[in-house]
Amino acid sequence: MTQRTVEVQRDIRAEQQSAADAFRDRMTRQGTLVVRLLSSPGSGKTTLLEHTAEKLGTSQSIGILVGDVETQRDAERLAPYAPTSQITTGGACHLEIPLIEKTLPELGDQPFDILFLEDIGNLICPAAHDLGEHLRVILLSTPEGDDKPGKYPKAFRLSNVAIISKIDLLAHFPFSVERAKQDALAVQPDLTILTCSAFTGEGMDAWCELLLSKKQGLTT
Amino acid sequence: MTQRTVEVQRDIRAEQQSAADAFRDRMTRQGTLVVRLLSSPGSGKTTLLEHTAEKLGTSQSIGILVGDVETQRDAERLAPYAPTSQITTGGACHLEIPLIEKTLPELGDQPFDILFLEDIGNLICPAAHDLGEHLRVILLSTPEGDDKPGKYPKAFRLSNVAIISKIDLLAHFPFSVERAKQDALAVQPDLTILTCSAFTGEGMDAWCELLLSKKQGLTT
Repeated sequence: MTQRTVEVQRDIRAEQQSAADAFRDRMTRQGTLVVRLLSSPGSGKTTLLEHTAEKLGTSQSIGILVGDVETQRDAERLAPYAPTSQITTGGACHLEIPLIEKTLPELGDQPFDILFLEDIGNLICPAAHDLGEHLRVILLSTPEGDDKPGKYPKAFRLSNVAIISKIDLLAHFPFSVERAKQDALAVQPDLTILTCSAFTGEGMDAWCELLLSKKQGLTT
Repeated sequence: MTQRTVEVQRDIRAEQQSAADAFRDRMTRQGTLVVRLLSSPGSGKTTLLEHTAEKLGTSQSIGILVGDVETQRDAERLAPYAPTSQITTGGACHLEIPLIEKTLPELGDQPFDILFLEDIGNLICPAAHDLGEHLRVILLSTPEGDDKPGKYPKAFRLSNVAIISKIDLLAHFPFSVERAKQDALAVQPDLTILTCSAFTGEGMDAWCELLLSKKQGLTT
Protein backbone atom coordinates (compact mmCIF):
# COMPACT_ATOMS: atom_id res chain seq x y z
CA MET A 1 0.00 0.00 0.00
CA THR A 2 2.88 2.33 0.84
CA GLN A 3 4.63 1.28 -2.37
CA ARG A 4 1.44 2.02 -4.32
CA THR A 5 1.16 5.47 -2.75
CA VAL A 6 4.74 6.29 -3.64
CA GLU A 7 4.24 5.23 -7.25
CA VAL A 8 1.11 7.34 -7.63
CA GLN A 9 2.93 10.28 -6.09
CA ARG A 10 5.78 9.86 -8.58
CA ASP A 11 3.38 9.69 -11.51
CA ILE A 12 1.68 12.90 -10.41
CA ARG A 13 5.06 14.64 -10.04
CA ALA A 14 6.15 13.48 -13.50
CA GLU A 15 2.87 14.69 -15.02
CA GLN A 16 3.20 18.06 -13.31
CA GLN A 17 6.78 18.45 -14.52
CA SER A 18 5.82 17.55 -18.04
CA ALA A 19 2.95 20.09 -18.00
CA ALA A 20 5.35 22.77 -16.70
CA ASP A 21 7.92 21.98 -19.41
CA ALA A 22 5.24 22.07 -22.14
CA PHE A 23 3.97 25.45 -20.88
CA ARG A 24 7.49 26.89 -20.79
CA ASP A 25 8.24 25.61 -24.30
CA ARG A 26 5.06 27.17 -25.66
CA MET A 27 5.86 30.50 -24.00
CA THR A 28 9.43 30.38 -25.39
CA ARG A 29 8.18 29.73 -28.92
CA GLN A 30 5.75 32.64 -28.77
CA GLY A 31 8.46 34.92 -27.30
CA THR A 32 6.88 35.42 -23.87
CA LEU A 33 9.28 35.62 -20.93
CA VAL A 34 7.58 34.05 -17.90
CA VAL A 35 8.74 35.59 -14.62
CA ARG A 36 7.53 34.12 -11.35
CA LEU A 37 7.69 35.96 -8.03
CA LEU A 38 7.84 33.93 -4.84
CA SER A 39 7.97 35.15 -1.23
CA SER A 40 6.44 35.28 2.25
CA PRO A 41 3.17 37.18 2.63
CA GLY A 42 3.85 40.91 2.57
CA SER A 43 7.35 40.91 1.12
CA GLY A 44 6.30 43.35 -1.56
CA LYS A 45 5.56 41.24 -4.64
CA THR A 46 2.50 43.27 -5.64
CA THR A 47 4.16 46.64 -5.02
CA LEU A 48 7.21 45.56 -7.02
CA LEU A 49 4.92 44.47 -9.88
CA GLU A 50 3.00 47.76 -9.84
CA HIS A 51 6.24 49.71 -10.32
CA THR A 52 7.73 47.18 -12.76
CA ALA A 53 4.65 47.19 -15.00
CA GLU A 54 4.60 50.98 -14.92
CA LYS A 55 8.27 51.26 -15.93
CA LEU A 56 8.33 48.49 -18.56
CA GLY A 57 4.80 48.94 -19.85
CA THR A 58 5.83 51.67 -22.30
CA SER A 59 8.08 49.30 -24.27
CA GLN A 60 6.77 45.81 -23.42
CA SER A 61 3.35 44.20 -23.47
CA ILE A 62 2.76 42.76 -20.04
CA GLY A 63 0.27 40.30 -18.51
CA ILE A 64 -0.04 39.36 -14.85
CA LEU A 65 -1.51 36.32 -13.08
CA VAL A 66 -1.80 36.64 -9.30
CA GLY A 67 -2.27 33.74 -6.93
CA ASP A 68 -3.90 34.03 -3.51
CA VAL A 69 -5.74 31.79 -1.08
CA GLU A 70 -8.59 34.29 -0.90
CA THR A 71 -9.64 37.76 -2.19
CA GLN A 72 -9.17 39.63 -5.46
CA ARG A 73 -7.21 42.43 -3.79
CA ASP A 74 -3.90 42.02 -5.56
CA ALA A 75 -5.54 41.84 -8.99
CA GLU A 76 -7.47 45.02 -8.17
CA ARG A 77 -4.22 46.77 -7.27
CA LEU A 78 -2.44 45.61 -10.43
CA ALA A 79 -5.26 46.09 -12.95
CA PRO A 80 -4.45 49.79 -13.56
CA TYR A 81 -0.95 48.83 -14.74
CA ALA A 82 -1.49 45.75 -16.93
CA PRO A 83 -4.08 43.07 -17.83
CA THR A 84 -4.34 41.07 -14.60
CA SER A 85 -6.28 38.01 -13.47
CA GLN A 86 -6.53 36.59 -9.99
CA ILE A 87 -6.23 32.87 -9.29
CA THR A 88 -7.90 32.16 -5.96
CA THR A 89 -7.12 28.69 -4.62
CA GLY A 90 -9.70 28.68 -1.81
CA GLY A 91 -7.32 27.22 0.74
CA ALA A 92 -4.67 25.42 -1.33
CA CYS A 93 -1.12 26.48 -0.51
CA HIS A 94 0.39 26.51 -3.99
CA LEU A 95 -0.46 27.07 -7.67
CA GLU A 96 -0.39 24.41 -10.37
CA ILE A 97 -0.17 24.54 -14.17
CA PRO A 98 -3.84 23.65 -14.90
CA LEU A 99 -4.98 26.69 -12.87
CA ILE A 100 -2.60 28.89 -14.84
CA GLU A 101 -3.64 27.44 -18.20
CA LYS A 102 -7.30 27.94 -17.29
CA THR A 103 -6.88 31.56 -16.19
CA LEU A 104 -4.45 32.76 -18.87
CA PRO A 105 -7.09 33.36 -21.60
CA GLU A 106 -8.84 35.88 -19.30
CA LEU A 107 -5.91 38.25 -19.89
CA GLY A 108 -7.08 38.92 -23.45
CA ASP A 109 -4.82 39.72 -26.41
CA GLN A 110 -1.66 37.66 -26.41
CA PRO A 111 1.22 36.81 -26.68
CA PHE A 112 2.73 39.16 -24.12
CA ASP A 113 6.39 40.10 -24.08
CA ILE A 114 6.50 39.36 -20.37
CA LEU A 115 4.04 37.31 -18.30
CA PHE A 116 4.38 37.72 -14.53
CA LEU A 117 3.15 35.02 -12.15
CA GLU A 118 2.77 36.36 -8.63
CA ASP A 119 2.72 33.27 -6.42
CA ILE A 120 0.82 32.71 -3.18
CA GLY A 121 2.62 34.17 -0.14
CA ASN A 122 4.35 31.06 1.19
CA LEU A 123 8.06 30.19 1.24
CA ILE A 124 7.60 26.45 1.64
CA CYS A 125 5.02 24.62 -0.49
CA PRO A 126 5.22 26.62 -3.77
CA ALA A 127 8.99 26.02 -3.89
CA ALA A 128 8.36 22.37 -4.78
CA HIS A 129 6.28 23.20 -7.90
CA ASP A 130 7.63 24.26 -11.29
CA LEU A 131 5.09 26.61 -12.90
CA GLY A 132 6.77 26.70 -16.30
CA GLU A 133 8.57 29.96 -15.58
CA HIS A 134 11.82 31.02 -17.28
CA LEU A 135 12.91 33.08 -14.29
CA ARG A 136 12.07 32.31 -10.67
CA VAL A 137 12.54 35.37 -8.49
CA ILE A 138 12.42 35.18 -4.71
CA LEU A 139 11.78 38.32 -2.65
CA LEU A 140 13.17 38.73 0.85
CA SER A 141 12.04 41.94 2.52
CA THR A 142 14.33 43.49 5.11
CA PRO A 143 11.75 43.41 7.97
CA GLU A 144 11.63 39.60 7.69
CA GLY A 145 15.23 39.27 8.88
CA ASP A 146 18.50 38.30 7.23
CA ASP A 147 18.26 34.68 8.46
CA LYS A 148 15.60 33.54 5.99
CA PRO A 149 17.74 32.00 3.19
CA GLY A 150 19.14 29.43 5.66
CA LYS A 151 15.71 28.73 7.13
CA TYR A 152 13.89 28.30 3.79
CA PRO A 153 16.72 26.90 1.63
CA LYS A 154 14.58 25.12 -0.97
CA ALA A 155 12.87 28.34 -2.02
CA PHE A 156 16.26 29.97 -2.54
CA ARG A 157 17.96 26.90 -4.05
CA LEU A 158 15.46 26.72 -6.92
CA SER A 159 15.43 30.46 -7.69
CA ASN A 160 17.42 32.32 -10.33
CA VAL A 161 17.18 35.80 -8.83
CA ALA A 162 16.80 37.02 -5.24
CA ILE A 163 15.58 40.54 -4.55
CA ILE A 164 16.23 42.00 -1.12
CA SER A 165 13.21 44.31 -0.99
CA LYS A 166 12.20 47.28 1.22
CA ILE A 167 15.82 48.40 1.61
CA ASP A 168 14.48 51.89 2.43
CA LEU A 169 13.64 50.37 5.85
CA LEU A 170 17.19 49.19 6.60
CA ALA A 171 17.79 51.97 9.12
CA HIS A 172 15.05 50.75 11.44
CA PHE A 173 16.20 47.29 12.45
CA PRO A 174 19.20 44.99 12.40
CA PHE A 175 19.41 43.44 8.93
CA SER A 176 22.75 42.63 7.34
CA VAL A 177 22.53 42.67 3.53
CA GLU A 178 25.91 40.93 3.49
CA ARG A 179 24.73 38.13 5.80
CA ALA A 180 21.57 37.59 3.75
CA LYS A 181 23.63 37.48 0.52
CA GLN A 182 26.17 35.03 1.94
CA ASP A 183 23.37 32.80 3.27
CA ALA A 184 21.55 32.85 -0.06
CA LEU A 185 24.71 32.16 -2.09
CA ALA A 186 25.58 29.29 0.25
CA VAL A 187 22.40 27.48 -0.84
CA GLN A 188 22.45 28.68 -4.48
CA PRO A 189 25.83 29.91 -5.75
CA ASP A 190 24.40 30.95 -9.17
CA LEU A 191 21.79 33.28 -7.67
CA THR A 192 21.72 36.83 -9.02
CA ILE A 193 21.06 39.08 -6.00
CA LEU A 194 19.57 42.54 -6.32
CA THR A 195 18.56 45.06 -3.67
CA CYS A 196 15.57 47.27 -4.23
CA SER A 197 12.99 49.65 -2.82
CA ALA A 198 9.87 49.99 -4.91
CA PHE A 199 8.90 53.02 -2.76
CA THR A 200 12.05 55.09 -3.35
CA GLY A 201 12.81 53.54 -6.75
CA GLU A 202 16.31 52.45 -5.69
CA GLY A 203 17.40 49.34 -7.59
CA MET A 204 14.39 49.40 -9.94
CA ASP A 205 16.51 50.24 -13.01
CA ALA A 206 18.82 47.26 -12.47
CA TRP A 207 15.81 44.96 -11.99
CA CYS A 208 14.10 46.18 -15.16
CA GLU A 209 17.33 45.92 -17.15
CA LEU A 210 17.73 42.33 -15.99
CA LEU A 211 14.20 41.54 -17.20
CA LEU A 212 14.79 43.16 -20.59
CA SER A 213 18.06 41.29 -21.04
CA LYS A 214 16.36 37.96 -20.18
CA LYS A 215 13.56 38.78 -22.61
CA GLN A 216 16.17 39.58 -25.26
CA GLY A 217 17.97 36.29 -24.55
CA LEU A 218 14.75 34.34 -25.00
CA THR A 219 14.20 35.36 -28.58
CA THR A 220 17.78 35.26 -29.88
CA MET B 1 -10.65 4.71 -5.38
CA THR B 2 -11.44 8.37 -4.79
CA GLN B 3 -13.90 7.31 -2.09
CA ARG B 4 -11.17 5.21 -0.49
CA THR B 5 -8.73 8.12 -0.51
CA VAL B 6 -11.27 10.39 1.12
CA GLU B 7 -11.98 7.85 3.84
CA VAL B 8 -8.28 7.39 4.64
CA GLN B 9 -7.86 11.16 4.71
CA ARG B 10 -10.77 11.44 7.16
CA ASP B 11 -9.33 8.74 9.40
CA ILE B 12 -5.98 10.51 9.53
CA ARG B 13 -7.69 13.81 10.39
CA ALA B 14 -9.71 12.14 13.16
CA GLU B 15 -6.56 10.52 14.58
CA GLN B 16 -4.71 13.83 14.49
CA GLN B 17 -7.58 15.60 16.24
CA SER B 18 -7.78 12.94 18.89
CA ALA B 19 -4.00 13.17 19.53
CA ALA B 20 -4.28 16.96 19.81
CA ASP B 21 -7.20 16.70 22.26
CA ALA B 22 -5.34 14.13 24.38
CA PHE B 23 -2.23 16.35 24.48
CA ARG B 24 -4.31 19.40 25.49
CA ASP B 25 -6.10 17.42 28.21
CA ARG B 26 -2.82 16.19 29.64
CA MET B 27 -1.39 19.71 29.66
CA THR B 28 -4.54 21.05 31.34
CA ARG B 29 -4.38 18.40 34.08
CA GLN B 30 -0.75 19.20 34.83
CA GLY B 31 -1.48 22.94 34.84
CA THR B 32 0.55 23.84 31.75
CA LEU B 33 -0.88 26.57 29.52
CA VAL B 34 0.04 25.78 25.91
CA VAL B 35 0.42 28.90 23.77
CA ARG B 36 1.03 28.54 20.06
CA LEU B 37 2.40 31.33 17.88
CA LEU B 38 1.58 31.31 14.19
CA SER B 39 2.66 33.77 11.49
CA SER B 40 4.46 34.46 8.22
CA PRO B 41 8.24 34.15 8.23
CA GLY B 42 9.79 37.16 9.92
CA SER B 43 6.71 38.52 11.72
CA GLY B 44 8.59 38.56 15.00
CA LYS B 45 7.57 35.34 16.77
CA THR B 46 11.07 34.65 18.10
CA THR B 47 11.68 38.24 19.19
CA LEU B 48 8.30 38.34 20.95
CA LEU B 49 9.16 35.08 22.74
CA GLU B 50 12.59 36.38 23.83
CA HIS B 51 10.97 39.37 25.52
CA THR B 52 7.99 37.38 26.85
CA ALA B 53 10.21 34.73 28.44
CA GLU B 54 12.39 37.44 29.95
CA LYS B 55 9.40 39.27 31.48
CA LEU B 56 7.43 36.23 32.68
CA GLY B 57 10.41 34.04 33.54
CA THR B 58 10.75 35.54 37.03
CA SER B 59 7.31 34.29 38.12
CA GLN B 60 6.54 31.42 35.70
CA SER B 61 8.42 28.31 34.61
CA ILE B 62 8.57 28.39 30.83
CA GLY B 63 9.44 25.88 28.10
CA ILE B 64 9.67 26.57 24.37
CA LEU B 65 9.42 24.32 21.30
CA VAL B 66 10.35 25.98 18.01
CA GLY B 67 9.45 24.64 14.58
CA ASP B 68 11.42 25.37 11.45
CA VAL B 69 11.98 23.76 8.07
CA GLU B 70 15.74 24.02 8.57
CA THR B 71 18.37 25.35 11.03
CA GLN B 72 18.60 25.58 14.83
CA ARG B 73 18.80 29.39 14.77
CA ASP B 74 15.61 30.20 16.64
CA ALA B 75 16.37 27.72 19.41
CA GLU B 76 19.84 29.24 19.76
CA ARG B 77 18.27 32.70 20.13
CA LEU B 78 15.74 31.55 22.72
CA ALA B 79 17.96 29.24 24.80
CA PRO B 80 19.30 32.08 27.01
CA TYR B 81 15.74 32.87 28.14
CA ALA B 82 14.13 29.45 28.74
CA PRO B 83 14.63 25.73 28.07
CA THR B 84 14.17 25.49 24.29
CA SER B 85 14.20 22.69 21.73
CA GLN B 86 14.08 22.99 17.97
CA ILE B 87 11.86 20.81 15.83
CA THR B 88 13.29 20.75 12.29
CA THR B 89 10.90 19.28 9.76
CA GLY B 90 13.40 18.99 6.90
CA GLY B 91 10.97 20.34 4.32
CA ALA B 92 7.52 19.69 5.76
CA CYS B 93 5.34 22.79 5.95
CA HIS B 94 3.63 22.19 9.32
CA LEU B 95 4.13 20.56 12.73
CA GLU B 96 2.20 17.57 14.04
CA ILE B 97 1.56 16.21 17.52
CA PRO B 98 3.97 13.22 17.31
CA LEU B 99 6.88 15.60 16.61
CA ILE B 100 5.90 17.67 19.63
CA GLU B 101 5.47 14.63 21.90
CA LYS B 102 8.86 13.32 20.79
CA THR B 103 10.71 16.61 21.38
CA LEU B 104 9.01 17.70 24.62
CA PRO B 105 11.13 15.50 26.97
CA GLU B 106 14.28 17.29 25.72
CA LEU B 107 13.14 20.37 27.64
CA GLY B 108 13.98 18.70 30.96
CA ASP B 109 12.17 19.30 34.26
CA GLN B 110 8.41 19.60 33.81
CA PRO B 111 5.59 20.48 34.10
CA PHE B 112 6.01 24.09 33.00
CA ASP B 113 3.56 26.85 33.85
CA ILE B 114 3.57 27.92 30.21
CA LEU B 115 4.71 25.95 27.16
CA PHE B 116 5.17 28.01 23.99
CA LEU B 117 5.00 26.39 20.56
CA GLU B 118 6.56 28.62 17.91
CA ASP B 119 5.18 27.30 14.63
CA ILE B 120 6.87 27.21 11.23
CA GLY B 121 6.64 30.51 9.36
CA ASN B 122 3.65 29.83 7.10
CA LEU B 123 0.15 31.30 7.21
CA ILE B 124 -1.53 28.55 5.21
CA CYS B 125 -0.74 24.89 6.01
CA PRO B 126 -0.23 25.07 9.81
CA ALA B 127 -3.66 26.70 10.19
CA ALA B 128 -5.31 23.35 9.36
CA HIS B 129 -3.59 21.49 12.22
CA ASP B 130 -4.57 21.58 15.89
CA LEU B 131 -1.40 21.15 17.97
CA GLY B 132 -3.19 20.73 21.29
CA GLU B 133 -2.73 24.39 22.26
CA HIS B 134 -5.04 26.25 24.65
CA LEU B 135 -4.36 29.56 23.00
CA ARG B 136 -3.61 30.10 19.31
CA VAL B 137 -1.95 33.44 18.71
CA ILE B 138 -1.44 34.82 15.22
CA LEU B 139 1.11 37.56 14.60
CA LEU B 140 0.69 40.10 11.82
CA SER B 141 3.64 42.46 11.50
CA THR B 142 3.00 45.93 10.15
CA PRO B 143 5.46 45.64 7.21
CA GLU B 144 3.38 42.74 5.84
CA GLY B 145 0.43 45.03 5.13
CA ASP B 146 -3.02 45.46 6.64
CA ASP B 147 -4.68 43.26 3.98
CA LYS B 148 -3.47 39.92 5.36
CA PRO B 149 -6.47 38.83 7.52
CA GLY B 150 -8.71 38.83 4.43
CA LYS B 151 -6.11 37.02 2.36
CA TYR B 152 -5.33 34.29 4.91
CA PRO B 153 -8.72 33.97 6.65
CA LYS B 154 -8.33 30.41 7.93
CA ALA B 155 -5.27 31.30 10.00
CA PHE B 156 -7.21 34.16 11.61
CA ARG B 157 -10.51 32.27 11.91
CA LEU B 158 -8.97 29.55 14.06
CA SER B 159 -6.97 31.89 16.32
CA ASN B 160 -7.91 33.24 19.74
CA VAL B 161 -5.56 36.21 19.81
CA ALA B 162 -4.06 38.37 17.05
CA ILE B 163 -1.01 40.49 17.76
CA ILE B 164 -0.24 43.33 15.38
CA SER B 165 3.53 43.35 15.81
CA LYS B 166 6.32 45.82 14.96
CA ILE B 167 4.06 48.82 15.56
CA ASP B 168 7.22 50.91 16.09
CA LEU B 169 7.53 50.78 12.28
CA LEU B 170 4.05 52.25 11.60
CA ALA B 171 5.48 55.63 10.61
CA HIS B 172 7.36 54.19 7.65
CA PHE B 173 4.61 52.79 5.43
CA PRO B 174 0.89 52.79 4.91
CA PHE B 175 -0.64 50.35 7.41
CA SER B 176 -4.04 50.97 8.94
CA VAL B 177 -4.36 49.28 12.33
CA GLU B 178 -8.11 49.91 12.09
CA ARG B 179 -8.40 48.22 8.71
CA ALA B 180 -6.40 45.20 9.89
CA LYS B 181 -8.58 44.93 13.02
CA GLN B 182 -11.83 45.19 11.05
CA ASP B 183 -10.61 42.59 8.56
CA ALA B 184 -9.57 40.21 11.32
CA LEU B 185 -12.82 40.64 13.28
CA ALA B 186 -14.81 40.06 10.10
CA VAL B 187 -13.38 36.54 9.88
CA GLN B 188 -13.25 35.88 13.66
CA PRO B 189 -15.49 38.15 15.78
CA ASP B 190 -14.21 36.65 19.08
CA LEU B 191 -10.58 37.48 18.35
CA THR B 192 -8.71 39.43 21.04
CA ILE B 193 -6.50 41.90 19.19
CA LEU B 194 -3.38 43.42 20.72
CA THR B 195 -0.76 45.75 19.28
CA CYS B 196 2.82 45.42 20.29
CA SER B 197 6.46 46.26 19.66
CA ALA B 198 8.91 43.87 21.27
CA PHE B 199 11.68 46.39 20.48
CA THR B 200 10.20 49.40 22.31
CA GLY B 201 8.26 47.29 24.82
CA GLU B 202 4.93 48.92 23.88
CA GLY B 203 2.04 46.53 24.43
CA MET B 204 4.19 43.89 26.14
CA ASP B 205 2.50 44.38 29.55
CA ALA B 206 -0.98 43.78 28.13
CA TRP B 207 0.26 40.65 26.32
CA CYS B 208 1.91 39.23 29.44
CA GLU B 209 -1.17 40.03 31.57
CA LEU B 210 -3.34 38.18 29.07
CA LEU B 211 -1.06 35.13 29.33
CA LEU B 212 -1.11 35.20 33.14
CA SER B 213 -4.88 35.50 33.20
CA LYS B 214 -5.25 32.54 30.79
CA LYS B 215 -2.83 30.53 32.92
CA GLN B 216 -4.89 31.44 36.03
CA GLY B 217 -8.10 30.41 34.24
CA LEU B 218 -6.61 27.02 33.38
CA THR B 219 -6.10 25.94 36.97
CA THR B 220 -9.23 27.36 38.60
